[in-house]
Amino acid sequence: MALVYSFSHRHRRPPRQLAGLLGGKGANLAEMTSVVKLPVPPGFTITTDACRKYMDSGWPGGLDEDVERHLGKLERQMGKHFGAVDDPLLLSVRSGAKFSMPGMMDTILNLGLNDRTVKSFANSTGDEAFAYRSYARLISMFGKVVLGVDDSAFDQPREQALRDESVEDDSDLSATAWKGLCKAHKAAIRSATRRSFPQDPTVQLHQSIEAVFKSWNGERAIAYREREHIAHDLGTAVNIQAMVFGNRDDESGTGVAFTRDAATGENAPYGDFLVNAQGEDVVAGVRKTEPLAAMGHHFPEIYDELLGYMDRLEAHYRDMLDLEFTIEEGQLWILQVRIGKRSGVAALRMAVEMTKDKAIRLDRKEAVSRITPDHIDQILHPTLASIDLEPLTSGLGASPGAAVGAAVFSANEAIRRSNAGESVILVRRETSPEDVHGMLAAEGVLTSRGGLVSHAAVVARGWGKPAVVGADQVVVEDHSFSVGDLTINEGEVISLDGSSGHVFKGAATLEEPEPTPELEIILSWADAIRRGRIGVRANADNGPDAARARRYGAEGIGLCRTEHMFLDPSRLPIMRRMILAETEAEEAEAFDELRRAQHEDFRQILEEMDGLPVTVRLLDPPLNEFLPDPVELEVLSATDGLSPEEDRLRRAVTEWDEANPMLGIRGVRLAVIKPGLYAMQVRALLDAVKDRVAAGGKPIVEVMIPLTISAAEMRLARSWVIAAAEEMNVTSTLLIGTMIETPRAALLADEMAHVSDFFSFGTNDLTQMTFGFSRDDVEAKLMPRYRALGLLSGDPFESIDTDGVGRLVTSAVKLARSAKRRMPIGVCGEHGGDPASIKFFSEAGFDYVSCSPYRIPVARLAAAHSIIGTTGDSR
Amino acid sequence: MALVYSFSHRHRRPPRQLAGLLGGKGANLAEMTSVVKLPVPPGFTITTDACRKYMDSGWPGGLDEDVERHLGKLERQMGKHFGAVDDPLLLSVRSGAKFSMPGMMDTILNLGLNDRTVKSFANSTGDEAFAYRSYARLISMFGKVVLGVDDSAFDQPREQALRDESVEDDSDLSATAWKGLCKAHKAAIRSATRRSFPQDPTVQLHQSIEAVFKSWNGERAIAYREREHIAHDLGTAVNIQAMVFGNRDDESGTGVAFTRDAATGENAPYGDFLVNAQGEDVVAGVRKTEPLAAMGHHFPEIYDELLGYMDRLEAHYRDMLDLEFTIEEGQLWILQVRIGKRSGVAALRMAVEMTKDKAIRLDRKEAVSRITPDHIDQILHPTLASIDLEPLTSGLGASPGAAVGAAVFSANEAIRRSNAGESVILVRRETSPEDVHGMLAAEGVLTSRGGLVSHAAVVARGWGKPAVVGADQVVVEDHSFSVGDLTINEGEVISLDGSSGHVFKGAATLEEPEPTPELEIILSWADAIRRGRIGVRANADNGPDAARARRYGAEGIGLCRTEHMFLDPSRLPIMRRMILAETEAEEAEAFDELRRAQHEDFRQILEEMDGLPVTVRLLDPPLNEFLPDPVELEVLSATDGLSPEEDRLRRAVTEWDEANPMLGIRGVRLAVIKPGLYAMQVRALLDAVKDRVAAGGKPIVEVMIPLTISAAEMRLARSWVIAAAEEMNVTSTLLIGTMIETPRAALLADEMAHVSDFFSFGTNDLTQMTFGFSRDDVEAKLMPRYRALGLLSGDPFESIDTDGVGRLVTSAVKLARSAKRRMPIGVCGEHGGDPASIKFFSEAGFDYVSCSPYRIPVARLAAAHSIIGTTGDSR
Repeated sequence: MALVYSFSHRHRRPPRQLAGLLGGKGANLAEMTSVVKLPVPPGFTITTDACRKYMDSGWPGGLDEDVERHLGKLERQMGKHFGAVDDPLLLSVRSGAKFSMPGMMDTILNLGLNDRTVKSFANSTGDEAFAYRSYARLISMFGKVVLGVDDSAFDQPREQALRDESVEDDSDLSATAWKGLCKAHKAAIRSATRRSFPQDPTVQLHQSIEAVFKSWNGERAIAYREREHIAHDLGTAVNIQAMVFGNRDDESGTGVAFTRDAATGENAPYGDFLVNAQGEDVVAGVRKTEPLAAMGHHFPEIYDELLGYMDRLEAHYRDMLDLEFTIEEGQLWILQVRIGKRSGVAALRMAVEMTKDKAIRLDRKEAVSRITPDHIDQILHPTLASIDLEPLTSGLGASPGAAVGAAVFSANEAIRRSNAGESVILVRRETSPEDVHGMLAAEGVLTSRGGLVSHAAVVARGWGKPAVVGADQVVVEDHSFSVGDLTINEGEVISLDGSSGHVFKGAATLEEPEPTPELEIILSWADAIRRGRIGVRANADNGPDAARARRYGAEGIGLCRTEHMFLDPSRLPIMRRMILAETEAEEAEAFDELRRAQHEDFRQILEEMDGLPVTVRLLDPPLNEFLPDPVELEVLSATDGLSPEEDRLRRAVTEWDEANPMLGIRGVRLAVIKPGLYAMQVRALLDAVKDRVAAGGKPIVEVMIPLTISAAEMRLARSWVIAAAEEMNVTSTLLIGTMIETPRAALLADEMAHVSDFFSFGTNDLTQMTFGFSRDDVEAKLMPRYRALGLLSGDPFESIDTDGVGRLVTSAVKLARSAKRRMPIGVCGEHGGDPASIKFFSEAGFDYVSCSPYRIPVARLAAAHSIIGTTGDSR
Repeated sequence: MALVYSFSHRHRRPPRQLAGLLGGKGANLAEMTSVVKLPVPPGFTITTDACRKYMDSGWPGGLDEDVERHLGKLERQMGKHFGAVDDPLLLSVRSGAKFSMPGMMDTILNLGLNDRTVKSFANSTGDEAFAYRSYARLISMFGKVVLGVDDSAFDQPREQALRDESVEDDSDLSATAWKGLCKAHKAAIRSATRRSFPQDPTVQLHQSIEAVFKSWNGERAIAYREREHIAHDLGTAVNIQAMVFGNRDDESGTGVAFTRDAATGENAPYGDFLVNAQGEDVVAGVRKTEPLAAMGHHFPEIYDELLGYMDRLEAHYRDMLDLEFTIEEGQLWILQVRIGKRSGVAALRMAVEMTKDKAIRLDRKEAVSRITPDHIDQILHPTLASIDLEPLTSGLGASPGAAVGAAVFSANEAIRRSNAGESVILVRRETSPEDVHGMLAAEGVLTSRGGLVSHAAVVARGWGKPAVVGADQVVVEDHSFSVGDLTINEGEVISLDGSSGHVFKGAATLEEPEPTPELEIILSWADAIRRGRIGVRANADNGPDAARARRYGAEGIGLCRTEHMFLDPSRLPIMRRMILAETEAEEAEAFDELRRAQHEDFRQILEEMDGLPVTVRLLDPPLNEFLPDPVELEVLSATDGLSPEEDRLRRAVTEWDEANPMLGIRGVRLAVIKPGLYAMQVRALLDAVKDRVAAGGKPIVEVMIPLTISAAEMRLARSWVIAAAEEMNVTSTLLIGTMIETPRAALLADEMAHVSDFFSFGTNDLTQMTFGFSRDDVEAKLMPRYRALGLLSGDPFESIDTDGVGRLVTSAVKLARSAKRRMPIGVCGEHGGDPASIKFFSEAGFDYVSCSPYRIPVARLAAAHSIIGTTGDSR
């Protein structure tokens, strides 16, 4: 394999497909040069192979020779010589990895200038100020980027020069000033590094290439790759290109152009333009730019030429593009092209419009594959419009959307202020079932503990409420919180972004999404692709959620958590009476009350989901979730003493207190110990079924048994359900299935399949048990460290751990289907709403995923992507 | 398949191998009759097949006909008729399952007597009192066993008759008295059941057979099978045999004989004998028996005949036997034979002696396979000699051996009284690391919570200290405990049996075991069998334990838990200083102190284990195990207030408090968060290695990383160990391996193998995570219920769950060996000392098991059994 390719090289495949080898920038430069035949300043690309070799074993053998050969070719092409005293060839060096990556070395311009060539450059251009300014720029860029000298060492003398000559803009400085600055910059390098700025252009080039290679393993680049799940061994390419100057004279200029509007998706070119400037000036925002259309006034022919190129490029790439161009003395050059980033609204509009665009002719699959989950999130949740606020801290972005409100520190205060019309954000160390009504009243939630499947995160996502969790720098007190020296008192306004995890002091402006008709079009196309392959259900526990889920396109309920019904303040006392019952009569009475309460809940849900399946999970959490905090009771007992009723409660709390509640007596285990419990729930469910049938409805219910470990356990649980159904003369088919949550159930999936009508994987618990990770304990404290050290490739609670948990899941699916060929299999953990996980489940042969109502649109999209074989391009 | 076989049936295989079909008793009766040709009263056996059919679908078709046919044969052979008015044939009916089983229906004698035949029986025997006494016995036995009438209904009139005739013994009652008793017994049956005693002998027989079938599913039988892991679908056989009477006259008699002494193993016949008596009289202990040798005086020829039969039987069965025999009017009959139960001492002596016995010629494998783990336990631990104490309660027998002492309720009190010379038993709800010194001071431990791998159980087993755990009827208060209405106050003496789990009020007599030379012989034979196949190492954390382990035959240390070293009261403060450290300097200082402390511990261990491998597990438990109870601190804070130091402690406790500590920050995770920790431990270990090398020793150390989940984590941990070794110039090979404790590590065993020099399965945690069972939470509360309902076939913490956890383990072994063919694999969980689990590990290809020093002899035996393919006969 060659280590260097000219932009004009004729590759066997279209170069744009070779981003792995040439980097994204290099691939597109080659595409434009060799295929689209646009005017691109000539140059060549050092491949990512060369970078990988450098990382493995130092400077690659043969690379110097290859570079020299391609440089020779470039010199012949340009009729100039690199390092020549007379009219020298100048070069730019740019990094270009497969994925664009902040923190990588960016650009060095004007390579080839030195104390001697700068003079001839001044002569040949006839502009001494321009020549020395170019040289000064090379020295300072090289100093910063290659030699690591601090910015300020170059900025200070430049600012001094501006003051000395009483001008405001660099371009107004005199040649004398620039000459002085060249000297000053060289001195700054010497004093900071004890080395001289290299005069030999070949050395300049060699060191610049090496600096690009090294920047691949810079701290920021590594951190970025960690966060974005980009492999560390890809390496970067290096692009070396002849310089063109947009700042040569007033017949020169530079700009950035989008082929369509990246914010709205409107099919009209759009961009920024500057006369007599270099690209950096546009990007840096030092000078005020003109809109792209202004170029039509300055350079009408060149503008038309550019529009023609843009049309050709869009037709060629079949997508919206983002270009950089430069005009040098009336000659247009295209410097870079890439697929343009776009907002969610724009992405949807473009995708739909391009299916009707004759030059592009997108088919529906392509249109769907161009929408990312992030695009959908932007459409469905408010976002932070301005974030010129003081950043406070950041945590895990646990539930997307942005929120602004007064910080409050208890559920009661949240409810009180919210009732008074104030927007609040509930701030807690962590949340518990006792906080849920406060969470409901708040605009958003911030916790200092917990992870992506902590209570706060799961509940917030279920309600589509923005949340940042595990912000571990936050110290929460009773009526304030602090981050370092900064304290936020109750009532002070904060803003948070539940997508990025950032938290700000003060009130940010929120941008409320406007639903666009294209969303429904794209999702209907996505449904057409996935239907019959993988379904999308919702996790919903009450009528309103069920209704919302159906509106968002859910094809049933995959998880109805019956415990949420008991946490309602009006029902908690009944639940406690059941737990505290000392006689069978007391217990039976509590069961009866609970049955009546659940009956109405179920009726509402079945009504909303009429004709679609509703999977009801019988009670799952340990009973102590329904009891008060033991520490508080002990403290109260030691200080104020307890009433007999409180003391009874204390004893119950002690009895049900567990060392590791997650692995304790919950799920079906609880039902084995309290044998009437599940029968009561089934009776309440069947009461509701009867109501619905009487009302002419079509209820479809599936009963789900949680936390099973053996077929014998499942057989026993089935017998309870069947007995209750027979007792109530319910003759319709009632599916009875189990969650696969324990590794044992997964290991024995064949045996479990024989006694289950369906499986639903509870991948939250399965992940916890497979890793031995208590999500509440490890996510905030351990996970960031583990990810930073590369001990885990991702957060297994965010996207399913395909290596470990995945092995268990795929083998369980295989075992289950070997026992029962058409075994229906779904997933109802938090992973059911995560695109990468949906891809895994789809490939593993799952029949459906189930997720929070608010995630349904994303899940429908991701399910379609899994069938198409894309995860949604990152645009 | 026939449902009935005559004792004389010529089976294709020796009948003694057909216990599954004929039951143990029936198989041996057939063996004696058809093979050894001894005088056995003729009869036949209804097979276990018939019983299984009965349980499935009621009385088996054809069974009546088969019984009738065999009865006819029996009548012809005996020249008497069943139910004949003249000299009737009388029968006994006995149950006989494959395994002897308390709670099954035992025996009904004299079937065939009724109001008419009793008269002719009186005539033909010429002894009216004998005839009516036999009849009365039939009626009362039938009433009790078949019809379920209470004992007392028959005992009261008999006692009245004794008083009436002023005699002391049944055999002295007159014929008139017996006639009256027959009437009284019949009336008692009528009044209790509203049914008459059946006069028809065929009905008597039918009902007796059915009663045997039914007794298979009696409550006590089911409970026994649960406890002994006997399948519930085996069924029982029924033996029907012609009666012989040892109580006919003074030329008659009965006895029980052992071919060797069951208590000592001495090769001399031994037993009990009674003239003019039936077998029941010997067993019931109503009359004082004579020693077997006395029979030589009463019936010298018959005695010689019996000794001859005993020799023939021993040579035939090649084992010690337990016989029942009867002499009827000078004729010797053998009624039953079985392999004799024996004490541990006797088992060992017999096994060794029988290898030299020319008639038996046991080989060494057979000798080893005749010793059970229980035999070894009896040799090594004190047992309860007399248990005529009031039973208090029972729990899980968690650590074998018996103990007697005053109940104490705190570690301090245990130490105080023990220092004063008093024997104590520590009673706690559950134990924690803070109790360990109290446990060490106590004779035994009793807890009301926790299971077989709870803290109390594991620590007690580690010290060979008797323990009963999870006795959930026990309510523990500050200075007393109660069971129901009964209260035991501090200082009152209790006794406990850590093998059976029973607890008694008062002081039992203890039998201290005497080590016999045969133990070492048998274990050396066991070693010869297993060596090269599977090794036995010890879990030992200090010098004395290491020395003990080596004495017991350990071939190294498989698990040295370094945390135990830090729980010593003198070291806990240093550990706390490390946790509380606020600066790096403070932390480093604490690390230094800990290093010095560990250095000496390691030196002692390496000295004791010189030349054998020592596997050191780096720190595993969550840090909060080294901190005080958070509830106590909160209560103290709310009542008396805290000193600044205590408040600092409270904050640390809060910081390290976890929702599910078992799945929290422990093991290698802790080391990732406290990066100096493992390096410190390795340095301490290598300090000790250097000392030993300097002293001319041969230390062999293996460093073990706990709770890993990924290869990346293991690579990082390896790098710490290697860096410490290089820094200390330790050049010798240092093996670095990992525990396989998380399901994920097992699932990715191939990847883990690439970065590990060895694996040691931590099956405690692996079981907890695979089941989702927190041992502390589920064992006492859930496990008994689950076992009773058949939801689990056994306690997975006692014997490894071969179905679920086993699947994971075997697949992990396969994956590991696919990556590294000779990967050394061991196990160091509590299962390492459990015979059934050792069999599993051996078959799965493990290189060694590691267990508590006190379990080493049992493990050596069980390892040999696993190679031979036996689990030790139950003798």
